Amino acid sequence: MPRTSKRRTKKVGLPAGSLVYTGEQAVGKVDVTLIDYDEQTFEERPLHAVDECVVYKAKPTATWINVDGVHDPAMLEKIGECFGLHRLVIEDLMSVVQRPKVEDFGEYLFVVLKMLTYDEKDGRIVPEQVSLIVGDNFLLSFQEGIKGDVFPLIRDRLRAGRGKIRKMGVDYLAYSLLDALVDGYFVILEKLGDRIDLLEEDLIARPGKTVVGQIYQLKRELLFLHKAVWPLREVLAALERRESPIIQETTAPYLRDVYDHVVQVIDSVEIYRDMLSTMLDLYLSSVSFRLNEVMKVLTIIATIFMPLTFIAGVYGMNFKYMPELEWRSGYFLSLGVMGAVAVGMMVFFKRKKWL
Amino acid sequence: MPRTSKRRTKKVGLPAGSLVYTGEQAVGKVDVTLIDYDEQTFEERPLHAVDECVVYKAKPTATWINVDGVHDPAMLEKIGECFGLHRLVIEDLMSVVQRPKVEDFGEYLFVVLKMLTYDEKDGRIVPEQVSLIVGDNFLLSFQEGIKGDVFPLIRDRLRAGRGKIRKMGVDYLAYSLLDALVDGYFVILEKLGDRIDLLEEDLIARPGKTVVGQIYQLKRELLFLHKAVWPLREVLAALERRESPIIQETTAPYLRDVYDHVVQVIDSVEIYRDMLSTMLDLYLSSVSFRLNEVMKVLTIIATIFMPLTFIAGVYGMNFKYMPELEWRSGYFLSLGVMGAVAVGMMVFFKRKKWL
Amino acid sequence: MPRTSKRRTKKVGLPAGSLVYTGEQAVGKVDVTLIDYDEQTFEERPLHAVDECVVYKAKPTATWINVDGVHDPAMLEKIGECFGLHRLVIEDLMSVVQRPKVEDFGEYLFVVLKMLTYDEKDGRIVPEQVSLIVGDNFLLSFQEGIKGDVFPLIRDRLRAGRGKIRKMGVDYLAYSLLDALVDGYFVILEKLGDRIDLLEEDLIARPGKTVVGQIYQLKRELLFLHKAVWPLREVLAALERRESPIIQETTAPYLRDVYDHVVQVIDSVEIYRDMLSTMLDLYLSSVSFRLNEVMKVLTIIATIFMPLTFIAGVYGMNFKYMPELEWRSGYFLSLGVMGAVAVGMMVFFKRKKWL
Amino acid sequence: MPRTSKRRTKKVGLPAGSLVYTGEQAVGKVDVTLIDYDEQTFEERPLHAVDECVVYKAKPTATWINVDGVHDPAMLEKIGECFGLHRLVIEDLMSVVQRPKVEDFGEYLFVVLKMLTYDEKDGRIVPEQVSLIVGDNFLLSFQEGIKGDVFPLIRDRLRAGRGKIRKMGVDYLAYSLLDALVDGYFVILEKLGDRIDLLEEDLIARPGKTVVGQIYQLKRELLFLHKAVWPLREVLAALERRESPIIQETTAPYLRDVYDHVVQVIDSVEIYRDMLSTMLDLYLSSVSFRLNEVMKVLTIIATIFMPLTFIAGVYGMNFKYMPELEWRSGYFLSLGVMGAVAVGMMVFFKRKKWL
Amino acid sequence: MPRTSKRRTKKVGLPAGSLVYTGEQAVGKVDVTLIDYDEQTFEERPLHAVDECVVYKAKPTATWINVDGVHDPAMLEKIGECFGLHRLVIEDLMSVVQRPKVEDFGEYLFVVLKMLTYDEKDGRIVPEQVSLIVGDNFLLSFQEGIKGDVFPLIRDRLRAGRGKIRKMGVDYLAYSLLDALVDGYFVILEKLGDRIDLLEEDLIARPGKTVVGQIYQLKRELLFLHKAVWPLREVLAALERRESPIIQETTAPYLRDVYDHVVQVIDSVEIYRDMLSTMLDLYLSSVSFRLNEVMKVLTIIATIFMPLTFIAGVYGMNFKYMPELEWRSGYFLSLGVMGAVAVGMMVFFKRKKWL
Repeated sequence: MPRTSKRRTKKVGLPAGSLVYTGEQAVGKVDVTLIDYDEQTFEERPLHAVDECVVYKAKPTATWINVDGVHDPAMLEKIGECFGLHRLVIEDLMSVVQRPKVEDFGEYLFVVLKMLTYDEKDGRIVPEQVSLIVGDNFLLSFQEGIKGDVFPLIRDRLRAGRGKIRKMGVDYLAYSLLDALVDGYFVILEKLGDRIDLLEEDLIARPGKTVVGQIYQLKRELLFLHKAVWPLREVLAALERRESPIIQETTAPYLRDVYDHVVQVIDSVEIYRDMLSTMLDLYLSSVSFRLNEVMKVLTIIATIFMPLTFIAGVYGMNFKYMPELEWRSGYFLSLGVMGAVAVGMMVFFKRKKWL
Repeated sequence: MPRTSKRRTKKVGLPAGSLVYTGEQAVGKVDVTLIDYDEQTFEERPLHAVDECVVYKAKPTATWINVDGVHDPAMLEKIGECFGLHRLVIEDLMSVVQRPKVEDFGEYLFVVLKMLTYDEKDGRIVPEQVSLIVGDNFLLSFQEGIKGDVFPLIRDRLRAGRGKIRKMGVDYLAYSLLDALVDGYFVILEKLGDRIDLLEEDLIARPGKTVVGQIYQLKRELLFLHKAVWPLREVLAALERRESPIIQETTAPYLRDVYDHVVQVIDSVEIYRDMLSTMLDLYLSSVSFRLNEVMKVLTIIATIFMPLTFIAGVYGMNFKYMPELEWRSGYFLSLGVMGAVAVGMMVFFKRKKWL
Repeated sequence: MPRTSKRRTKKVGLPAGSLVYTGEQAVGKVDVTLIDYDEQTFEERPLHAVDECVVYKAKPTATWINVDGVHDPAMLEKIGECFGLHRLVIEDLMSVVQRPKVEDFGEYLFVVLKMLTYDEKDGRIVPEQVSLIVGDNFLLSFQEGIKGDVFPLIRDRLRAGRGKIRKMGVDYLAYSLLDALVDGYFVILEKLGDRIDLLEEDLIARPGKTVVGQIYQLKRELLFLHKAVWPLREVLAALERRESPIIQETTAPYLRDVYDHVVQVIDSVEIYRDMLSTMLDLYLSSVSFRLNEVMKVLTIIATIFMPLTFIAGVYGMNFKYMPELEWRSGYFLSLGVMGAVAVGMMVFFKRKKWL
Repeated sequence: MPRTSKRRTKKVGLPAGSLVYTGEQAVGKVDVTLIDYDEQTFEERPLHAVDECVVYKAKPTATWINVDGVHDPAMLEKIGECFGLHRLVIEDLMSVVQRPKVEDFGEYLFVVLKMLTYDEKDGRIVPEQVSLIVGDNFLLSFQEGIKGDVFPLIRDRLRAGRGKIRKMGVDYLAYSLLDALVDGYFVILEKLGDRIDLLEEDLIARPGKTVVGQIYQLKRELLFLHKAVWPLREVLAALERRESPIIQETTAPYLRDVYDHVVQVIDSVEIYRDMLSTMLDLYLSSVSFRLNEVMKVLTIIATIFMPLTFIAGVYGMNFKYMPELEWRSGYFLSLGVMGAVAVGMMVFFKRKKWL
Repeated sequence: MPRTSKRRTKKVGLPAGSLVYTGEQAVGKVDVTLIDYDEQTFEERPLHAVDECVVYKAKPTATWINVDGVHDPAMLEKIGECFGLHRLVIEDLMSVVQRPKVEDFGEYLFVVLKMLTYDEKDGRIVPEQVSLIVGDNFLLSFQEGIKGDVFPLIRDRLRAGRGKIRKMGVDYLAYSLLDALVDGYFVILEKLGDRIDLLEEDLIARPGKTVVGQIYQLKRELLFLHKAVWPLREVLAALERRESPIIQETTAPYLRDVYDHVVQVIDSVEIYRDMLSTMLDLYLSSVSFRLNEVMKVLTIIATIFMPLTFIAGVYGMNFKYMPELEWRSGYFLSLGVMGAVAVGMMVFFKRKKWL
């Protein structure tokens, strides 16, 4: 989870529309893939020259161009020219620390989102910014260029022509992508939920020192997830209200469905945060409780043996004249007194319910 | 309380309208019961072939079809066809991890709720998703298939024709079902309330280690209840506003009544959560207080006996020349000094209000 | 403060409009008193037969019927018939665990409130539900039947014809009752405020174990008061907006006045809650602080006497050959060393600012 | 800071419009001062007979009547008659525990505020209720009668005719008074800020027992300030919206200015409260930290000397046959063992980083 | 971070429009720089006589006058006259403790902001108030006079005529300045983020006493940042809505961009605050945990050696008749018993999982 501010500062002082890439994937070739389809036809191929876009823009078929890597300003500018994008949009594409948002530029909608995947090896969330530009017959998607995405099943469905995806417009495709992204959040939630369950067991079975560190770690990741998903609520509400003619009426119920999922994710994040807070309290109180137990043992031992040791010490004194020392039963009497003191203390502790 | 995210992930990557059952009751036969009534007539019977629906849909009488089990996509699709349901609705019926919501599809209203029952044996809340589809003369209800529901009294009333339930339309029936579900929440609240009362007594009488675990458990269940009931407020407010013609004017006051009950449940949940938080503070402070008491005992004992033991130790030394040892009254003098030290310490503690 | 959920569950599963009394005052006769007045005339008498209502309803004079006890469904039904009340209203009258609310039934307004009195003996708040039904020339008030209410001064004013109360309509009478009820909250606030003041003194003078229990108790009562008064804000705002023609324009400023008082009560409750939270922190920190003090005493004593006792122990050993024991000044030297150790420790503690 | 509820209860059960003074300044003469001015003329004199008001009300010049003391119902009634005030307004004037508010009575605006001054001697905030009645050519101000107010500079400016105050209407005068009152809040904030700064230093330099009490005291005063200033935001927003023709267009920017100041006060109060909460955490954690330090010292001492004392104790036993006692080097060997044990413990603590 | 209230009190009691400087930079010459440009021409020079403004105001070219230092009322009045500014605006310019705001005066917009720079040496945030007055062809900017600002790159762009800055109006220039200011906040965030990262490491590696002080310090600075940036959200939302004709349609998307950045800053501040709160909990729980560890060591040592020392003490008593002392193997038997006791205690601790 890289800090937003760190990457933003790369751009401080530059004019608006400055094309500066703020991410970490600045190397490597940019992969551009084109999928052009309608109900009957389907074409899928890598796009080597961006100029070819123009042809597809003119065609009435639905065109999905996926750009994997946003560190090449020249290429983005070309795409921008072809599809008539505002310079600020191109700037935002390259600035991979955007807050999720939707902006209506009339001709097209500009949507920024976070794709979250869970790195099993490091046990951490990997964010990747995904921007969508949805026109009336084209959809451009831009990824940061981290390998892999959550869209392979959508591509399969497009290829196979299964379901209604090829029958409906690019707004439905946009919905499908949004849906896949939000589904990805449930995977993250599931992983975090598993870790919270484990932590809960640990807390009861072996409340060690690491528990708090883990709670802190989980809280941070939930904060991160919250930050990614909270603005999405607004984004989807705006899309569903269909203020732009690009979103067709038949797509609205699907968007409402994604909206419901987003709200569910937010609810779960809130509940997890609440649970972690209570777990921290639980941990602190169990530490306090155990301290109490430790101190009781110490106090019982000290309170019993200190008086006994004192008595032994008294009869270990070397005074010339100590009458008890001469008594035949002095030793046994002193042992008796010690026993009585010990028993008395025990009774005292029993009454205090310490034993 | 199964985690939502765990069950949601079953559907990740599938297209919208994919009929995937996300619950745990996937086995067993699906029971479909039909109740068809108007003021004069009443018919109740199990529905073996779903196709029979068509007949009842055409009839002007009110028809209530209750489906117990939502893991059979074929059957749900048939019902969907018969009543003209949107594919997303059928998908939502099978996805039993929905957030409570109401959606207006023009021809019918789609309401999703949670039926909560309290499992006395395990002392936990058992959730079951209930979806209602309310048309102008039919009401479909879908349950997850867990045995039993909270509607037997409503069925009795329908059979007996008591009250106005047979005189009014399906919207009134829908209200009755909602009312029964919300009444079920009060039963849960009552159980949780009893447990909180018990906990409160425990906290004062015998604040043991388990108290915190129980507070945590109760907090979790209240979170769960909160999650189920909070969105219901919106649902009922939307229904009561009567934006859909399906809800008749005469039913609105009844819905307002249920709305009031929901607000009451939310209020109570909030108050219980507040009380539990304060109880945790109470517990922590009582642990701290008892630690103080324990430490005072230890300190008093140590502070009295350490100096005494030291004095005894001094006169236990084996130096050749120790004048006091030769004194006739040396022993008694030393005992006197010890007594004086002990009394002095006692006075010191009295002044510090530790005794 | 009986739990709401406990009483609600009496009604689970019953149809809407079921007349089930959910309170605790189910025994005893129901007292019905009638006051009929206009500027010139005044009549006050107990109403033995409810049927007499009809006469008074027809008269243009203002009629106030106060019903003390809501456990008799037959009587309430008769009243309901006479004044044309909705069946849900009659149900709500008997269900004494309503949330404060106002509902506009066109012909009449239905207002539910809580009358709170302070039981000096038990030191607890006694709630009693009061429902008002305000028509154009009649006002019905229903109490749970607990002895006494906060309205005697209003009755006196009606009898004496003092002020404008006889000159204005029943909406002004309704205002007067509301005002008296809210004034009652100030009495409760005053009592709680006194107890908080006492607690504050205790906290500083003798922070014992009971303090936390008292804080908890007060927090509970404030939660209870909050629950009763918070919805009232909405109720009064709704009345003051005069959406119903029953509320006359001249009465609006008076209702605004009551609204202001309600807001004041809410403010005070919030401030008290804040103060109690801070007092709990204060208590916990004073407990921690005293623990520190106790531990310092223990540590100082132990740190001084342990080395001394050790030295004494060394010279108490019985080795054949211990040269120091033979020295003439061995004893005094050893005492000197002990003194030096003690003084050294003292200096150490002085530097650490423990003394 | 007297409690609101205590003073409110003086009025419980009385009819609306009852003129009962709820403050503490019930004795002494009521001072009434009149200032009548326009751009050319200026008159200032004490008003002995309230009846003289009538003359000034008729004159087109601006009239400011300041009443110092609100415990004389007869006088207030006379003023009320003269200026046509609603009876509830007169009641509110006498009830000095109002929440800040503005009410529009058409002919005049009724504004209630709190004037806060800081009592240097007792180190506490002294509140005094100030009510303003702003008509088209008159302004009445009512104070509780505590000596002094925050308006002398405004009177000077009126006398001298400096600035635009004499050129503009009474709404500008009202603004000036509001501005002076809000400026007074900054003085209070400054005092509280100074005390918080001192406390902060104390917290670091000498975190004694009194710190928590002071934090509590400051929190209470901030609660009090918050309560006085929070409703003011609404009051000024309402005035600035100019819903009443009494506020002229040219005065609106000035009111917006005061509004800005009020928001600034609210911001500062919130920040101070946040800071105090963090300071309490800081204090608690420093107490915990010091406890740790104390306990480490105790543990180190005990852990080193207990084994040593034990060894010494062993060789102090009086068994007939103890071979080591006969060894020539037994004593020195035992001292060596003791030294080794002590050094071993030291190493152990070094490794644990306790030393 | 000087306190607002301290500086505000300089103005208490003065009439509106009083020109009192409330800042700390009251000395030194005021620097006034003029930049006049359109697409073709560019002029930049210091302005020695303020009267020259008039010429530039009349010209259709865009004029940017930057005033560095606001402690000279005479100069500000002259500028005010020249550009027709309201007296309250001039007062606000001098009062450098304003809350960020925008006010529409018809002819011009008045925007107040905070420029924040990070003082590396002292590790603290240095605030400087920047006010902008945006007319149709002029922009006035006022700084407190602290050396340096965040605008040099904008000046460079104007000089070079790079980008669209010279092609667009002063509203675009205003946007550029706002953007530069908000970019400055990211630099601050970055610094605070670095310090939080460091603190996090410290917390785990060496949780010393200073950690809490640093958390407190960071919390204070975040509060400060929050206070500066929170009202900015409203300011930019208001500008972007284009309620004033001064903001042209083409500039709105740029302002929306800055708005997005502001929201991002607010998000980050909230996340940092959340993280710091959790870090404090983490710290407290690690202190508690270590206390537990310390106490366990103490208790183990005391519990093992106290009984042993007692046994040794018993056989160190000087009674005449103690049969064990005469036994040949008494010494070794006693050592054996001691060993058994020690082993027993060890087993006890093992079972309690303390070892």
